[in-house]
Amino acid sequence: MDPSDHVTIDTIRAAAERLRGVALETPLIPFETPAGRQILLKAESLQAIGSFKIRGAYNAIAALGEAARSGGVVAASSGNHAQGVARAARLFGIEATIVMPADAPAIKQARVRADGARVIHWDPGRPSHATPHEQAIALAAERGLPMIHSFDDDTVIAGQGTVGLEVAARVDDLAAVLVPIGGGGLIGGIATAVRERHPNVRIVGVEPALAADAQESFRTGRLVRWPTELGRRTIADGTRVNLSERTFAYIRRLVDDIVTVEESEIMAAVRLVAERARTVAEPSGALTAAAVCFRSAEAGLDRLSGTVVAVISGGNLDTDRLRACLEAPIPNPPG
Amino acid sequence: MDPSDHVTIDTIRAAAERLRGVALETPLIPFETPAGRQILLKAESLQAIGSFKIRGAYNAIAALGEAARSGGVVAASSGNHAQGVARAARLFGIEATIVMPADAPAIKQARVRADGARVIHWDPGRPSHATPHEQAIALAAERGLPMIHSFDDDTVIAGQGTVGLEVAARVDDLAAVLVPIGGGGLIGGIATAVRERHPNVRIVGVEPALAADAQESFRTGRLVRWPTELGRRTIADGTRVNLSERTFAYIRRLVDDIVTVEESEIMAAVRLVAERARTVAEPSGALTAAAVCFRSAEAGLDRLSGTVVAVISGGNLDTDRLRACLEAPIPNPPG
Repeated sequence: MDPSDHVTIDTIRAAAERLRGVALETPLIPFETPAGRQILLKAESLQAIGSFKIRGAYNAIAALGEAARSGGVVAASSGNHAQGVARAARLFGIEATIVMPADAPAIKQARVRADGARVIHWDPGRPSHATPHEQAIALAAERGLPMIHSFDDDTVIAGQGTVGLEVAARVDDLAAVLVPIGGGGLIGGIATAVRERHPNVRIVGVEPALAADAQESFRTGRLVRWPTELGRRTIADGTRVNLSERTFAYIRRLVDDIVTVEESEIMAAVRLVAERARTVAEPSGALTAAAVCFRSAEAGLDRLSGTVVAVISGGNLDTDRLRACLEAPIPNPPG
Repeated sequence: MDPSDHVTIDTIRAAAERLRGVALETPLIPFETPAGRQILLKAESLQAIGSFKIRGAYNAIAALGEAARSGGVVAASSGNHAQGVARAARLFGIEATIVMPADAPAIKQARVRADGARVIHWDPGRPSHATPHEQAIALAAERGLPMIHSFDDDTVIAGQGTVGLEVAARVDDLAAVLVPIGGGGLIGGIATAVRERHPNVRIVGVEPALAADAQESFRTGRLVRWPTELGRRTIADGTRVNLSERTFAYIRRLVDDIVTVEESEIMAAVRLVAERARTVAEPSGALTAAAVCFRSAEAGLDRLSGTVVAVISGGNLDTDRLRACLEAPIPNPPG
């Protein structure tokens, strides 16, 4: 994919205009690591629907135009993207049909329905339905409706990029931004926005070691896909998907490095963010805090001066899981 | 006390000027009650030091002037005010000596020391030391240093009032503001600020039923003091103190009513705020959410149209206590 086709800062600014009054400008919350480093958390956990996904979903549906979206939209997601599409569709007064795995958390299914969306359970029995995503594609084709992809879409990437606009505008001495990587849409958008004003900022993606397909792709220079079963091992459920060709191209062009964190570090980070920043982060959302707390040398942060921002992408997790994280031991910081 | 002596909107605006760059403008976070009402939480839990207390403490030390504060300040507190004075003193580059009960939470003592303040443990053995407060007064007199009271001081009340300025400026259709009551400084300041722009707004104080001295005072029209031992029964440790003549005068003049909540409702509110607003509230901070969720008729909210704001005053609590709250059953909403 040719970088000249990528989203530009102007596209992201247009998305920010559309999102005015829809997405909140989320706060930058001071946070001190166990090693005593002061950083800022960009708390998308405090966004409407509890994650950044409203930004991309709303921008994508807005970009369709009234005629194309009037019959409704289709999406596939087990989590935050489902809530983003459901909320955005409600705001446009259109129908949304979301294919979700039957075992997606009941609370997430309930929230999607509460926004008026129709939930269809993934039926893996049919050959065209190998994944919820494929089932949604089949459904969209059958009904002639647009499908809102969770990351492989430049209007979605532009929407997520508005997180980066907010960070760039508020932090003058920005030295580094850490972003969790799932499908890669969030980091692609943020990197595009942040590099415009801070060309030399260090941009680091963070993945669980148990779902490190993006790191492997980045280091080998070839897009690698990990089997879904492998990704299921991590508690960070938002990062279980693989990159697309599109998001991989953004990452190769704009990201400095990708680091991984262990499961114990992710759980400890959820605890530290609750204790020190009074914010509930979901495990995928706390990946970046884990990297700053426990992998700062690997992330290339130790010799940087200036402000480090860790993007906390969301705060949707079951209360039982939050309680378990609050019991997690805190690993010793390195050094 | 003559109301003409009370803090005015101009004093609060001056405090806001002083606090620029010191206190954060905290976010208003959307929150849905179990009964389906949409309200906003004013999240002082996300303030620097995790509570609103930095506002009053900093404003009071600023108002002293350079000569009066140069030798340092003294305060007494087991909790958030200690952290507020310690942080404010550090920002002014002066010494702070804080009298704390020896059994104050270790984490809070550690945070006070981390800001460079000297912690002196309350020694109840001496007759002039009947309370930590009296010990601090004796110490301040002995050393000729100013004492920063946690609420019985108009410069402190003006600082806390800046919370109300922020709410009034951001919410055009403000119908009601709920504020936790401990010593009464926060509600006195907020009510003064909010009434300026929204004269007919409903202002409701919230206390634990187990520490309901302010409600009794309000209803009987006479300042009542409850013995400290009674106040110790509630989990909401920030509300165990009694009003002063000064704060009682603000409350009589500016507050519409004071309601109480049960301990089970406070714990459930901590849980609901974590689950639905992704914010960690301490029990005293969650009192207002408990009132909106479970006592909305008593608080006079049921027939109001417009936006209700619940002030979440802080987010400092032990992780074990947070975990216990996350197990709390959610009472059925009324009606």
